[in-house]
Parts: sequence; structure tokens; C-alpha cells
Amino acid sequence: MQKDFVMAFDPATLSYDVNGLIPAIAQAHDTGEVLMMAWMTAGAVARTLETGRVTYWSRSRQSFWVKGETSGHVQELVEMRIDCDRDCLLLLVRQVGPACHTNRRSCFYTAIRDGDEAEIMAPVEG
Amino acid sequence: MQKDFVMAFDPATLSYDVNGLIPAIAQAHDTGEVLMMAWMTAGAVARTLETGRVTYWSRSRQSFWVKGETSGHVQELVEMRIDCDRDCLLLLVRQVGPACHTNRRSCFYTAIRDGDEAEIMAPVEG
Repeated sequence: MQKDFVMAFDPATLSYDVNGLIPAIAQAHDTGEVLMMAWMTAGAVARTLETGRVTYWSRSRQSFWVKGETSGHVQELVEMRIDCDRDCLLLLVRQVGPACHTNRRSCFYTAIRDGDEAEIMAPVEG
Repeated sequence: MQKDFVMAFDPATLSYDVNGLIPAIAQAHDTGEVLMMAWMTAGAVARTLETGRVTYWSRSRQSFWVKGETSGHVQELVEMRIDCDRDCLLLLVRQVGPACHTNRRSCFYTAIRDGDEAEIMAPVEG
């Protein structure tokens, strides 16, 4: 008889803001590239750990947002890390396709160079 | 006559939350390690770009927080990047000493492994 997976970790032990949200940074587990930052509720943290599929909370739609559910650009969770203040998460992920809705690998695609903002990453082809 | 440095980039073009804050992720420019996440005001963004010394906004003290000012564990800005929604910053930094006030290299020093939270990084010696 297979034992059910027991989650000893309780997402309620994290610190959420007044809206019940915690910021979550997604980082490519292999290259170390920072891909995006989005928000999670305690429920989203639990779902992400249970399913292994990164699930944020959409503040605009006020609902769970399984990353890549429509685009196919999912994030498989490799490891969830917690910071010293317990008010921020770092998600090491296996990113399928580009992370950004603009079709770029990362959402951080402009940089301040010589005092001006410059695009440093083009959308992925196709 | 030396020309003054002209900053074409305007921090007011970023999106701040209701408290006038934007989250900023600090990443080691060489190893790619994510070190910490803290908050900036438009003024903190400007100071960081002007001085090259990462300056956050302390929400508890309600004042500028020049990272490492007391500990010496400063962050020299290598590059500031902006995400697609303009509501999150990624700072590539040269971190002097440990980034975390617990004396660890990174603030993200626990991880969920086998359903439980485990410490994955020890404080730096000395």
C-alpha cells in the first residue's frame, strides 16, 4: 500500500501582506536566469508544492493562475526556497518556452545603460 | 569642463504600489545567485543609479537604507533591469560579504525538501 505524501511544511507559517500575498521569484534552475516575479496566496503555495506545477495568484483576475495553462509555457517546480523574513519565495523552475507574455525568455528585458533604458533581449522566434 | 552625467531614465516611469514601493531583487552578477528581495521608492531607485550603491527603502524605519552602511556588506550596482509590467526590478550586484543579516550569503537559505523545510546554507564563518 502506497503511503500518501505527507506535507509537514505549512504554508501558513509564511508572512503574507495585507492582501494575503507573498512575492515569488522564478529562477531557471539550470542557468540561474531570473525569469519573473509574481504573487502567491497560501493556497497557491500549497497547490504549487502538491502539483509541482507553479501556480500563482492573479491579482487582476483574483483567481489561481497556473503558469502556462493557456500558453503551454509552464513552470515545473524544482525547489521552493524561503527567505530569512519568510516574506519572499524563490522558485527554482524548469521553464518550458519563454517565461514572459511578450515571448521573451525573461520578463526582465530592459536595462538602464549609460543613464537610459535599453532593450537587452528580443522575443523568441516562432 | 566635465559634463555632468545626464540621466535620461526617469524613475517615475516605473509602477509603484499604493505605498509608493517597487520590489527589487538582488542577484550576484557573477554567480547568478539570488541574494535577497527588498523594496525601493522612486527616490531609492534614483539614488541607486546616481551613486552605484544599492539603496533600498526601509519599510520598518521609513527611511532610505543604503545596503551595508553599518555592516559593510554593501552592494555595488552592476546593472538595473526592469520587467515587462514595470513593477519589479532586478539588480545585478557585486555583493561584498554576505547579503543576509543572518550572515548567510543569500537570504534564501531554507528549502522545502520531501515536504518539510530544511536549512540549506550555513552562516559564513568569522
